[in-house]
Amino acid sequence: MTELNRDDHPFINDLHVGDNFDGFFVMQSLQMKTTRANKPFIVFEFSDRTGRIAGKLWDDAEAAYRGLSEGQVVKVRAVVEEYLGNPELKVQKIRPVAGEDSTDVTRFLPTVDHDSQQDWDQLEAAMERLEHPGLKALLEKLFGDESFREQYGRAPAGKRWHHGYIGGLLEHAASMAKLAHRVADHYPQLDRDLLVAGAILHDVGKLQELKYDTSIDYTVRGRLEGHIVIGANFVEQAAEGIEELDEETLVHLKHLVLSHQGTRENGCPVEPMTREAFTLYYLDEIDSKLNAIGRELEKAAGGGGAFTEYIKLLDRMLYKGGGFGESTPGADPSDE
Amino acid sequence: MTELNRDDHPFINDLHVGDNFDGFFVMQSLQMKTTRANKPFIVFEFSDRTGRIAGKLWDDAEAAYRGLSEGQVVKVRAVVEEYLGNPELKVQKIRPVAGEDSTDVTRFLPTVDHDSQQDWDQLEAAMERLEHPGLKALLEKLFGDESFREQYGRAPAGKRWHHGYIGGLLEHAASMAKLAHRVADHYPQLDRDLLVAGAILHDVGKLQELKYDTSIDYTVRGRLEGHIVIGANFVEQAAEGIEELDEETLVHLKHLVLSHQGTRENGCPVEPMTREAFTLYYLDEIDSKLNAIGRELEKAAGGGGAFTEYIKLLDRMLYKGGGFGESTPGADPSDE
Amino acid sequence: MTELNRDDHPFINDLHVGDNFDGFFVMQSLQMKTTRANKPFIVFEFSDRTGRIAGKLWDDAEAAYRGLSEGQVVKVRAVVEEYLGNPELKVQKIRPVAGEDSTDVTRFLPTVDHDSQQDWDQLEAAMERLEHPGLKALLEKLFGDESFREQYGRAPAGKRWHHGYIGGLLEHAASMAKLAHRVADHYPQLDRDLLVAGAILHDVGKLQELKYDTSIDYTVRGRLEGHIVIGANFVEQAAEGIEELDEETLVHLKHLVLSHQGTRENGCPVEPMTREAFTLYYLDEIDSKLNAIGRELEKAAGGGGAFTEYIKLLDRMLYKGGGFGESTPGADPSDE
Amino acid sequence: MTELNRDDHPFINDLHVGDNFDGFFVMQSLQMKTTRANKPFIVFEFSDRTGRIAGKLWDDAEAAYRGLSEGQVVKVRAVVEEYLGNPELKVQKIRPVAGEDSTDVTRFLPTVDHDSQQDWDQLEAAMERLEHPGLKALLEKLFGDESFREQYGRAPAGKRWHHGYIGGLLEHAASMAKLAHRVADHYPQLDRDLLVAGAILHDVGKLQELKYDTSIDYTVRGRLEGHIVIGANFVEQAAEGIEELDEETLVHLKHLVLSHQGTRENGCPVEPMTREAFTLYYLDEIDSKLNAIGRELEKAAGGGGAFTEYIKLLDRMLYKGGGFGESTPGADPSDE
Amino acid sequence: MTELNRDDHPFINDLHVGDNFDGFFVMQSLQMKTTRANKPFIVFEFSDRTGRIAGKLWDDAEAAYRGLSEGQVVKVRAVVEEYLGNPELKVQKIRPVAGEDSTDVTRFLPTVDHDSQQDWDQLEAAMERLEHPGLKALLEKLFGDESFREQYGRAPAGKRWHHGYIGGLLEHAASMAKLAHRVADHYPQLDRDLLVAGAILHDVGKLQELKYDTSIDYTVRGRLEGHIVIGANFVEQAAEGIEELDEETLVHLKHLVLSHQGTRENGCPVEPMTREAFTLYYLDEIDSKLNAIGRELEKAAGGGGAFTEYIKLLDRMLYKGGGFGESTPGADPSDE
Amino acid sequence: MTELNRDDHPFINDLHVGDNFDGFFVMQSLQMKTTRANKPFIVFEFSDRTGRIAGKLWDDAEAAYRGLSEGQVVKVRAVVEEYLGNPELKVQKIRPVAGEDSTDVTRFLPTVDHDSQQDWDQLEAAMERLEHPGLKALLEKLFGDESFREQYGRAPAGKRWHHGYIGGLLEHAASMAKLAHRVADHYPQLDRDLLVAGAILHDVGKLQELKYDTSIDYTVRGRLEGHIVIGANFVEQAAEGIEELDEETLVHLKHLVLSHQGTRENGCPVEPMTREAFTLYYLDEIDSKLNAIGRELEKAAGGGGAFTEYIKLLDRMLYKGGGFGESTPGADPSDE
Repeated sequence: MTELNRDDHPFINDLHVGDNFDGFFVMQSLQMKTTRANKPFIVFEFSDRTGRIAGKLWDDAEAAYRGLSEGQVVKVRAVVEEYLGNPELKVQKIRPVAGEDSTDVTRFLPTVDHDSQQDWDQLEAAMERLEHPGLKALLEKLFGDESFREQYGRAPAGKRWHHGYIGGLLEHAASMAKLAHRVADHYPQLDRDLLVAGAILHDVGKLQELKYDTSIDYTVRGRLEGHIVIGANFVEQAAEGIEELDEETLVHLKHLVLSHQGTRENGCPVEPMTREAFTLYYLDEIDSKLNAIGRELEKAAGGGGAFTEYIKLLDRMLYKGGGFGESTPGADPSDE
Repeated sequence: MTELNRDDHPFINDLHVGDNFDGFFVMQSLQMKTTRANKPFIVFEFSDRTGRIAGKLWDDAEAAYRGLSEGQVVKVRAVVEEYLGNPELKVQKIRPVAGEDSTDVTRFLPTVDHDSQQDWDQLEAAMERLEHPGLKALLEKLFGDESFREQYGRAPAGKRWHHGYIGGLLEHAASMAKLAHRVADHYPQLDRDLLVAGAILHDVGKLQELKYDTSIDYTVRGRLEGHIVIGANFVEQAAEGIEELDEETLVHLKHLVLSHQGTRENGCPVEPMTREAFTLYYLDEIDSKLNAIGRELEKAAGGGGAFTEYIKLLDRMLYKGGGFGESTPGADPSDE
Repeated sequence: MTELNRDDHPFINDLHVGDNFDGFFVMQSLQMKTTRANKPFIVFEFSDRTGRIAGKLWDDAEAAYRGLSEGQVVKVRAVVEEYLGNPELKVQKIRPVAGEDSTDVTRFLPTVDHDSQQDWDQLEAAMERLEHPGLKALLEKLFGDESFREQYGRAPAGKRWHHGYIGGLLEHAASMAKLAHRVADHYPQLDRDLLVAGAILHDVGKLQELKYDTSIDYTVRGRLEGHIVIGANFVEQAAEGIEELDEETLVHLKHLVLSHQGTRENGCPVEPMTREAFTLYYLDEIDSKLNAIGRELEKAAGGGGAFTEYIKLLDRMLYKGGGFGESTPGADPSDE
Repeated sequence: MTELNRDDHPFINDLHVGDNFDGFFVMQSLQMKTTRANKPFIVFEFSDRTGRIAGKLWDDAEAAYRGLSEGQVVKVRAVVEEYLGNPELKVQKIRPVAGEDSTDVTRFLPTVDHDSQQDWDQLEAAMERLEHPGLKALLEKLFGDESFREQYGRAPAGKRWHHGYIGGLLEHAASMAKLAHRVADHYPQLDRDLLVAGAILHDVGKLQELKYDTSIDYTVRGRLEGHIVIGANFVEQAAEGIEELDEETLVHLKHLVLSHQGTRENGCPVEPMTREAFTLYYLDEIDSKLNAIGRELEKAAGGGGAFTEYIKLLDRMLYKGGGFGESTPGADPSDE
Repeated sequence: MTELNRDDHPFINDLHVGDNFDGFFVMQSLQMKTTRANKPFIVFEFSDRTGRIAGKLWDDAEAAYRGLSEGQVVKVRAVVEEYLGNPELKVQKIRPVAGEDSTDVTRFLPTVDHDSQQDWDQLEAAMERLEHPGLKALLEKLFGDESFREQYGRAPAGKRWHHGYIGGLLEHAASMAKLAHRVADHYPQLDRDLLVAGAILHDVGKLQELKYDTSIDYTVRGRLEGHIVIGANFVEQAAEGIEELDEETLVHLKHLVLSHQGTRENGCPVEPMTREAFTLYYLDEIDSKLNAIGRELEKAAGGGGAFTEYIKLLDRMLYKGGGFGESTPGADPSDE
Repeated sequence: MTELNRDDHPFINDLHVGDNFDGFFVMQSLQMKTTRANKPFIVFEFSDRTGRIAGKLWDDAEAAYRGLSEGQVVKVRAVVEEYLGNPELKVQKIRPVAGEDSTDVTRFLPTVDHDSQQDWDQLEAAMERLEHPGLKALLEKLFGDESFREQYGRAPAGKRWHHGYIGGLLEHAASMAKLAHRVADHYPQLDRDLLVAGAILHDVGKLQELKYDTSIDYTVRGRLEGHIVIGANFVEQAAEGIEELDEETLVHLKHLVLSHQGTRENGCPVEPMTREAFTLYYLDEIDSKLNAIGRELEKAAGGGGAFTEYIKLLDRMLYKGGGFGESTPGADPSDE
């Protein structure tokens, strides 16, 4: 067993059997159980942005249990043991974080890998080029609201697959909005303003579909309604009172939100019926697939071989490159 | 050619080649064309509740055209001719209906085949048994609004397949609500109030998805958003300000609306995730299928054979009964 | 290692590493192997109604092996050890149960959670309301046969998913029969007698598709023919000699059995072609889904969170309730 | 109008507008209607092996109607007219065929294009090579029954797509049986006797699924149960009392019948689970596809082009051959 | 019957019953038949870029037949008659076109609606930005070959659905190539050169899959191999001898061609496995869908209503715009 | 720990915890890592024809690493330990094999279980019966090339599922070729020469899709293009210069290769459009399924029960036989 390290606060994926440490985690679940000898103990699941680990607390379980509740950020003193082949924390002390602890949400949640300001700049540049007074008014109303801006800037665009990190929604929408302008430059038959507004608002329902305080997960409403419906409804209510926004444009914009995943199989209640709806669907595919693929290739970069592992969500492997004409280095026998 | 019959106002499926008549129709479309000799003429499509028929007007087409617009109810004087194997109206006079004409929407639109009061009674009896204060308050707010009641009592529940007639939505919802009580009597584990409220409101989006003034058809908003989303959104907005309606119940009720067609393939953005959502989906299947099947069997009743024609929406024939052990009546030869 | 407990006869899911006990299990499999040193030993798999566990016997394996055969109920003396991370029995003694052992099938098989007499009462009440002389005669012939009654009362309606326990078929059929009456009360156009007879007999093929002596599993015939075909054939043969049962009614009844899972994808050789066949399909969906969902929600009740785990057979999670506005209990810091 | 031709009895696909003739047809349907002037008339559909044609009888309709019933073979005197662009019979006289008329089922039903004796020879040669006493006994029992032989020798194997003609079932089964021997010669691991018996009996349910007296069509039982289930049941009942037929072989044989269309989507209640079941499925595919393709290529042989028309049941065109390097014959201008 | 118009050479969709004219068509098929009176006649199908029409020649059929063969461009003198409800040509004279006739392929085949030079300019600008020496060498080799250029500039990119006209392949590829640059500007992680080369060559197999001399249709090889395989093979053979083109780049380029329709269901033997392959697939979807949608909206522009007809290839209607708040013009009664 | 056994060179599936041995393996992967204490170590994956096992080397890792590279055959001295529940090699010495080591590819790769000469004989007998001069010339050119013969005789026909071993392609093709003759004997309408040539060449693309030096796996080109396209292309290039091979026959042969998996879902760019293509597809299904099923039944032969485990690639269990009327042997109680 290593000596106690009080200051390091290691991340979960750095823990090894025998480590003895103080750390900060999100307590995803806790359950009171009893041994055959009727002694109470607690079973935990902890997480931080690098992974998850189980834990058990054997001493004074009842007292500890009273002070805890699911979802809290906790400070834990523990030793790493092995149980049925997996590492597990033997918890010695545990309490909710208090004011004096210096923790930070980025410890628990993955975060976009660059300064979000550049995404804001990109998004605002895209909005500035719009001319439709109704769409401009709608976007100004929304982005003029500080609380909306803050949520929009922090929300992830997914739980895991694409843009699944703090700042991911903004990054995704800003990229889509700029790309939408490029594509509207290419195809004059597209209604640029609708396409760009659709790019900015297509995933706005994620603000309520996901929670992202101490871990990224679906809200109850998110699972029972889905971000597509929440988003369309949000747009409709936000549009109330904006006189410049004619009904046809508003219904078309809602159609863009409702059909942006392209097919019923993908959860759209309606499928694209306009040029802009088809185009937005494909642009979303490009931007989200390239984000997800990028992360998969990054994960696979270390390993050998020219392909990634099989990736379930794509139902295939990806080609990383290489695999042709490798020279086999000469052998250097070092045997008996 | 038969003599002109000024008073009979025949329905479209009673017209025969040679008939000469005055009638009332909905003018579904009109298009100005010109002959090779550059003479203008108008091509029409007319409808009433029994069917559709094409028509042409050759004389003074330009003057007539100025007074007409798509979707109007018109009075027509015409002769039935045959064109490329189909009957067609040679229109002699045509004008929009005026105050002195006694026409009635039931002439143009199919209507429920019994007094809707019995459906209202059934619906209200079902509502009276509810106990959840929030759901009661929501339904009272809605059904206390005269304009909502009027729409709800007139709307069809479909364009053609099931309950596709004036009063169809009310008939369908009232039947579902009563059936929901029967099923809740059977399964105590079901939340009766949610199931019944879901039965009453699951198709409320049809009020805006369909128009049913002079013909039953989709509205633009209906096609671009779909009744499922419109309905869930309607419920959300109607619930505003009802304090007895807790958020969990409201989200569950919206989930019932959003998942009531059971699968993504059927256009649901989310699939049933509760006992009540599964049950409502199957009850809707039973009530709508039995309505549609009933009409198919009725249509097929006249013809011979033990089966209906192939029915595309079901991808099968239906069995009408019979077909076993028919005695072959003795022949009565009447030949040379 | 705990002291030997001769009387407790623990269930498998109560065993812990170190336990030393006498117990009764079904021996699902046994296989003679040899170590590298050529010593014979036996590898077992044991089960009871709570689960499965592996085992090994190292001493006098050959003698023990001669007295055993797959599928027997055995009495076992063993110690619980851990092997590759899983608990496993080190068997010291093993023999088939003998007359003096007091074991009981309910020890090995899950059983319906209430007195089956209430299901019989419900079923018989449903049968009494029938009027069609042919269907009545068929049911009387079947349920008048003591051996059929016994099988029908004991059979499960599934291996695991719904009604997968002793008495499950009767419970399911009785519920369906009563529900069929309720629905026939609602829709006068339904042939009540056919629907109820279909409800009672739709799963009768399970009597031969499944075996349920010491564990619930498929028979060879069950896998190679399926309960749908076995059931329809059973009905046909049972109907022989019943003169009141006209051919049309009999064929319709077989159609109900053959189409009761609704689609070809679900294993039906024919799909519903009558009102009664459609309705029976949906009622079966409701009754079996509510049973399965109920067990899933029960299993998930202990855990935290508002949703169950992902359930593969439904391809979704279920909503358990809650998850809104939880107050976060005040923290009670107990740290250094 | 051509002169009356009393002797020719033309086939339907040889009729031309203006023909005046006596003929024999199957009366597929008849319906009494009335004109607006309240005069009764009859609407018919007639068929023979070459096609179908509508007809009307205007005079003494009521008297004629009393002597007729659906499905009869009738003698008709009529003139061919054109109605709404299609040829139609104006019937002058009609009566059921009587003893003195020399008609023959082959007039009305398509029939296999060679002497069926060669199919019987092939089938019997295949049966003679079998060795399994139970399967031999089963086949001897069946084919020793004169009435079974007669039905088996006349039945079609389909309504239209493959082997859809009198003698088609025998032709298909005999070909399959011989082919099964060839394939069993190739793969010694196949159980020859089961495969050949499966080949002979896989479609035996067609005897009751189809009727083929005056036209080939489904029976009510055929549509409501399907030939797969009827066939498996038939085998089970035929096997009763044959002691040499052990249960495993019988269940395997029924499995071959039940799975011979390969997939649930194709209407199989169970899918192939043995070598013989997989092989029988593919052999059935080969024999039925080659039959159907042969007829499609024959139909298309006359037309130009290297491909057939689009064939819906195959969802593709077939390649007829040719289409490369055609020389363009020299032009022979014959213009002004 | 109108007077003979020798000079107008009308297009098929301008013909009316009674017209009497000289015209130029492609003779898609011709078939010699005989009347019941044994007189030979010929049945034709003619086409030009506006449609298809049937024809018959009754006089001196045998002589005429000798001078004709399928697929020729012919000069026809005919009168338009009506047969079974459709217009049809009664041919009086017919001969293959001769040198003195001034016909032109654009008469028979639809052609891109602008000067193709602008597409060439766009394509070449896209090629000039490439830097990969192997890809540059490959493209230079291909586009340096005059015969390849000519084919590439004339070929359509489809039979009907998208870019189905002379010059369509070039238009499509040039648009894609420019768009690929825009998207590579947006996503620096994309390999610009591969993406652009893929855009230029993805449909190169169309050169051999389609013929487009007098009508656009599939070649035999096109149907039996498909443009995807033909294209990949073409690239492989073109690459032979280009030393700058390393194997990895070549295989990747072939992968782009082979996967550019995205899924196996769409006919791809392999599915996208790289960033560039996914992106190329979506860009192809955008460019081809916008082309096809544009033509559908154009076709529908004349008609009334806010939606197009149901479009089978999209399995939906498209929204044309409008349909909100239409004022109903005042009625102008002109009746009795 | 067992004593070191220097001569036995055990296979991976014979290793037990504690074994101490010298062995030969393929080193599938190696990765340099460091402990927390910054000491480098190597993580390996080894394979031979019996399985895979992980390994670690702790001492002098850097030196060892320099002499090694992925994919080499290595000689290893190691002890078997257990890590997280799985056996793992603690490597003591490792070096690439050298000339003096007697290893053999069959040690690492599974190999066909009989002398391949009988497959060659069968294949050549099949080729000798061909008469089409073009197809004969093509096959003679290919099989006259010694290097082609050698590859063709060694290649597997799959990675794992069917014929996934050295010599598998030849075995599969020879069996198919002979079977094709049998089926052509049965159906005279089949073009024997094309069918047999298709049988011989349908999987020729596997030569480049797979590598099979020290393990069987896909090549990069194999994954990115697939054997279907590689094979068709190979045929096209091999045909160059063979004048007897007319274009129609060549295109038809390529069509056989391109469609031999039957459907787009199975990766075919085109689906069968000729009798021969349909037949070849089904014959390939029979030959590959019987091979795969045979291996599954063999694997399952040892275990109890009448069925195999669930087999994912077939989405079902297979029936092994038995399971009826097992007598339960009398119990021999040996307990207290």
